[in-house]
Amino acid sequence: MSARILIIGAGRSSSALINYALQKSTELGWSVTVADADPSAAAAKIKDHPRGHAAWLDVTKTNDRRDLIDRADIVVSLLPAHLHIEVAQDCIRLKKHLITASYVSQELYRLGDEARNRELIFMGEMGLDPGIDHMTAMQRINEIREKGGKITAFYSFTGGLVAPENNDNPWGYKFTWNPRNVVLAGQGTAQYLYNGKLKFLPYQRLFRTTWDVEVPGLGKFEAYANRDSLLYRHQYGLHDIPTILRGTLRYPGFCAAWSALVRIGLTNADFPILDSDKITYHELMEALAPSGPGSVRDRIAQMLKIDVNGEAMERLNWLGLFRKKKINLPDATPALILEDLLLEKWKLGPKDKDLIVMQHQIEYELDGKKYRDVSNLTMKGENAEDTAMSRLVGLPMGIFTRLISQGMIKATGVHIPTMREVYEPVLEEMKEYGMELTHETQLI
Amino acid sequence: MSARILIIGAGRSSSALINYALQKSTELGWSVTVADADPSAAAAKIKDHPRGHAAWLDVTKTNDRRDLIDRADIVVSLLPAHLHIEVAQDCIRLKKHLITASYVSQELYRLGDEARNRELIFMGEMGLDPGIDHMTAMQRINEIREKGGKITAFYSFTGGLVAPENNDNPWGYKFTWNPRNVVLAGQGTAQYLYNGKLKFLPYQRLFRTTWDVEVPGLGKFEAYANRDSLLYRHQYGLHDIPTILRGTLRYPGFCAAWSALVRIGLTNADFPILDSDKITYHELMEALAPSGPGSVRDRIAQMLKIDVNGEAMERLNWLGLFRKKKINLPDATPALILEDLLLEKWKLGPKDKDLIVMQHQIEYELDGKKYRDVSNLTMKGENAEDTAMSRLVGLPMGIFTRLISQGMIKATGVHIPTMREVYEPVLEEMKEYGMELTHETQLI
Repeated sequence: MSARILIIGAGRSSSALINYALQKSTELGWSVTVADADPSAAAAKIKDHPRGHAAWLDVTKTNDRRDLIDRADIVVSLLPAHLHIEVAQDCIRLKKHLITASYVSQELYRLGDEARNRELIFMGEMGLDPGIDHMTAMQRINEIREKGGKITAFYSFTGGLVAPENNDNPWGYKFTWNPRNVVLAGQGTAQYLYNGKLKFLPYQRLFRTTWDVEVPGLGKFEAYANRDSLLYRHQYGLHDIPTILRGTLRYPGFCAAWSALVRIGLTNADFPILDSDKITYHELMEALAPSGPGSVRDRIAQMLKIDVNGEAMERLNWLGLFRKKKINLPDATPALILEDLLLEKWKLGPKDKDLIVMQHQIEYELDGKKYRDVSNLTMKGENAEDTAMSRLVGLPMGIFTRLISQGMIKATGVHIPTMREVYEPVLEEMKEYGMELTHETQLI
Repeated sequence: MSARILIIGAGRSSSALINYALQKSTELGWSVTVADADPSAAAAKIKDHPRGHAAWLDVTKTNDRRDLIDRADIVVSLLPAHLHIEVAQDCIRLKKHLITASYVSQELYRLGDEARNRELIFMGEMGLDPGIDHMTAMQRINEIREKGGKITAFYSFTGGLVAPENNDNPWGYKFTWNPRNVVLAGQGTAQYLYNGKLKFLPYQRLFRTTWDVEVPGLGKFEAYANRDSLLYRHQYGLHDIPTILRGTLRYPGFCAAWSALVRIGLTNADFPILDSDKITYHELMEALAPSGPGSVRDRIAQMLKIDVNGEAMERLNWLGLFRKKKINLPDATPALILEDLLLEKWKLGPKDKDLIVMQHQIEYELDGKKYRDVSNLTMKGENAEDTAMSRLVGLPMGIFTRLISQGMIKATGVHIPTMREVYEPVLEEMKEYGMELTHETQLI
């Protein structure tokens, strides 16, 4: 039962996983090697734990990488997504199990037969979103199916937010995730299904088309559509479902104000503004506003057809967009200027707790009646270092490592965590770490 | 005075140039070689003219290309823009003059010193837009400057349209230019200067912000801003000009209806619709419309806040966007589906005449008074083959070839046609081919 665990990557999001692995190492007889291009980062996470080892690894050096992988039984890769494939090929060659929290690429799926032939499990999307979303959804979907329900609609909403007690800015948002991804979120066209009809939402209308979501004990949220609502239909067994939507949760009012930023053009990453460090935020807004009489604020509000004294304008104002203060960045795109501003304004304070909220709404028919099954997942972090986000991303990989090392996993091949043998023990153990999961069913 | 002319490229837009060169060849003692990857295309354009020669050329074959260039005195490249640079390097090495109608790249500008040292002229942007726009603008700008005027505003508008007598669809538009470029026009962010202030127009607002342009004898047009209004400030000597705008002309009503297409999402080229050949145009519109009661047309009009019976909706209707007819293309982006539809709807009939309209408005101060100098260029084509567009793109290169071969050009190095020794004879001769050029000045 003893196992050699190799964790590749000791970056910001690795703490919860490494702590879990070290904490379980004595009980489970694990040795835990943490490899990183910066070995001091790995050492800092291990903190002299007797069963922990820091290793230096430049993943592009094939021989070094294979040496390390060869000396492990289970490999957890926290590398950027495009680097997984070489690790996966090594794992095939050297017969090692592999776990990642990243989206599974087509390239990785193609290794499925080889992994199965070697009795290996390659588990991807084993984080929060993707990860916990699959597990919590499949738990509800399977339970409904087992009692004979026919699922007619599936809505799934997830948000990485700040806890209500630290929600102290008008946007109701602070960064707990890659800021660049937040600024560029939704660019392109979102797709979902509604009543059997495919629906498209181009970026310019994305944040104006929101869904109200009520979470017991937390109140109201709003959601905007993700790009990929149709992505997991087949993996969830919802081939012919008429309505499926995946969305991102925000506190109320966020989306209308963000939509204003989109419409003004402040999320555009397609052109650098020459000498942007020579102008002020006010001048940037002037450049984006229609010409005419009145203040820039008046003309922006008029252009957006919103109240100049309303909530959305108040949020723009609070960001300092109308201040006569120099922009710090030369030749920056509007998106980069906005990101730079938000980094300061939406910074998670050291003692701020983050909050993860996830809700699935599943409508189904059973014995001629219609029901709605609503399940809610919530989790709060401890502070800006120990976030719910990092726990929910990292711990499922740790728990799944345990399941493999204890011989609890029968599946082989390339998978995402939709199987009962995965989601039941993982969700159960997650509750010990502060994840709350409830559900209720009502007639509709 | 005799010269050997090499024209590389015998594609669709080469006729006017090749005809000009052949027509002038006897008088000027030219031999004219037309080289193309398809030698029969070259032969077809030459039509057994005694001074014409067709040559086969794969431009990627360096030796073949150099052999042909070596046997010429003046090279005119009609190749796609990215292929000019190798021809230009050959021209440096073999000491040949070079003419193109494409935008001059930074890479090409860097050959300027070498061209000058060898007493060569490399003339780029020698077509219509870019080309004739530079020439007509500089003619007016220099005249105003010479009388002591101080230029305070420069507006330049160009449109490739259909002649009024063949303007028989509600959009007032037919394709006389690359349809893909028309569908994707303006994506990104337009920049211009207004009253000393930089202005940005993101794509989603581009077609809603239009300028009215009145052309004597033709009536009203509307213009939307080009991306590159600031591009030629320095080359025109307008370094500190407070207002500069370049725009594209359309018949009135076009922009509001096109803006509707943009806002609906039909110009998006960023995502393919899976199995788009299994749905109808009506279903596509349903997918892009908000859900709710009422017809798709009602909901689209409501979403756009426009009158369902108004002109813009009538134009969408005329395109057949609400018809229950299958889309022909599999896995196509909305932009490609739209382009496919427009190719049929906006086809220039064989006998249709195209119309090029260009207007520069130059405001200046002189002796304490303010003036506006308005110059208009118009030209009509003969039919769908012999278009004003192809003449205005091709003939300036032919005329400039004549000027070089007659020793009329003193300039050396890499240039665009902003010099008097170029624009005066070119514009003068263009009048013989049906180009009309007028201007008038009024106090403002």
